[in-house]
Amino acid sequence: MEIAQTIVDIRRLVGVAKKAGQTVGFVATLGALHGGHMSLIERARKETGFVVVSIFLNPTQFGPDEDLDEYPRQEEKDLALCEKADVDAVFAPSVEQMYPSGHCTVVKVEGLAEKLCGANRPGFFAGVSTVVAKLFNIVGPDVAYFGQKDAQQGLIIKQMVEELDMAVEIRMCPTVREDDGLAMSSRNAYLDAGQRRQASCLYRALQEGKKLIESGQVDRDKVTAAMERIIKDAGPCSIDYVAAVDSQSLEPATAENRNWLLALAVRIGRGRLIDNIVVEIPGAK
Amino acid sequence: MEIAQTIVDIRRLVGVAKKAGQTVGFVATLGALHGGHMSLIERARKETGFVVVSIFLNPTQFGPDEDLDEYPRQEEKDLALCEKADVDAVFAPSVEQMYPSGHCTVVKVEGLAEKLCGANRPGFFAGVSTVVAKLFNIVGPDVAYFGQKDAQQGLIIKQMVEELDMAVEIRMCPTVREDDGLAMSSRNAYLDAGQRRQASCLYRALQEGKKLIESGQVDRDKVTAAMERIIKDAGPCSIDYVAAVDSQSLEPATAENRNWLLALAVRIGRGRLIDNIVVEIPGAK
Repeated sequence: MEIAQTIVDIRRLVGVAKKAGQTVGFVATLGALHGGHMSLIERARKETGFVVVSIFLNPTQFGPDEDLDEYPRQEEKDLALCEKADVDAVFAPSVEQMYPSGHCTVVKVEGLAEKLCGANRPGFFAGVSTVVAKLFNIVGPDVAYFGQKDAQQGLIIKQMVEELDMAVEIRMCPTVREDDGLAMSSRNAYLDAGQRRQASCLYRALQEGKKLIESGQVDRDKVTAAMERIIKDAGPCSIDYVAAVDSQSLEPATAENRNWLLALAVRIGRGRLIDNIVVEIPGAK
Repeated sequence: MEIAQTIVDIRRLVGVAKKAGQTVGFVATLGALHGGHMSLIERARKETGFVVVSIFLNPTQFGPDEDLDEYPRQEEKDLALCEKADVDAVFAPSVEQMYPSGHCTVVKVEGLAEKLCGANRPGFFAGVSTVVAKLFNIVGPDVAYFGQKDAQQGLIIKQMVEELDMAVEIRMCPTVREDDGLAMSSRNAYLDAGQRRQASCLYRALQEGKKLIESGQVDRDKVTAAMERIIKDAGPCSIDYVAAVDSQSLEPATAENRNWLLALAVRIGRGRLIDNIVVEIPGAK
């Protein structure tokens, strides 16, 4: 496995692979790799010839009051995990390498970026879409893999790629969960033992919403109210949102929508946890 | 010369050239080609192996009260000019081809895009940088040529390319002028004979500013006041701006700046005309 810290180096490595006719698969991460990331890497390994993983804790996607400073960092462990997963090249640039002259250029997907997490985290998705555009331009992958846990991020990146005519295919991969249903996330590390037990309420709430919908409930307020009750009953927390939205537009869900995205963001202790599932509406066209 | 109207077609044409080892030169235009465009195309022809010209009257860089509807269109003449200039491929997409699903994704170079023309034409440079990002992603040029007449546009595109790590080199080319100094522009077609004569005041004002600076005047207000006087004396007009700014940052010029950009935007009749020159400050570091 090669480790590139500069743009020049990763471009050279990918250039050689491309010249040899290999397709390039790419997984972009903030580091602190967990089972979710590893599932993306495994799929890239299966489907593409040359697998690149980026490890870059991107400061522009953290707000001034957010957790950039305490975000878990474990670069040696991350590199060992990549090595074990047969990654071909890791791109681990410094902040200075990525933003040598500040960052005045912003890529923004208007509309989608303001909804759900965008309402609670202004600037977050602009930070994400901009750094992903940069990484795509640097690495030049044929296929990039993202996790369904970050459903809104996936939609935004897909729309960016489509609307800016980027020559990369986006493949969304299923959320990987702990035994009790908690979606794997680097931010789960913020939870103490009690909070960790409590945190399974997110998945239970999603399951309850799904059950209601499948039993014919298509009043989104009733669905989200039942979900909220489960979250609140589980212990002290602060709910950023519990939402039932169309899975593509992220507009409030209606009985006419084919697929609902049930999505939530809940702060438990120091951790802001998000999760979602897509539920097919029985009988919708 | 090949003419591609779809993204798929132009990608195929460029792909073949790249496989054959040719460097790709690119000139992006709104159509209504004039001597300025032709000088860019000639330079691309000299310096690169495969020359692509795009002809696309991009609606997103026109404000609601601007001249999109009356902007000159002459596609057959443009194609003949390209053919004569030995262009390899013209990319002439429809609006639907470029913006099939609206345009929610915006690339914005904050800071630079708000100055000079950005103050009078809100959204203009976001429209420009977004469509140029799209065109770069579609065409995939090695080198792209832009005219110094649109100095601010050139700075913005350079910064976008640098900050988004796009693998394209930007080359700025000198402004091409009519005999009386008027910068060539598709919008000169809006002028009647009297306005056309009056319009040479822009170049005369720039020359006056240059003369003052070279004779030791580094008070920018005195320089721009002298330029304004020439514009106003020439006939009825409306001045958007007459500015002396640092040629890189576009911040108000000071004696410490090495190069001043003298820039102006003046409305004469139906035409909004812009022009600029760079003047080296004697003795500045």
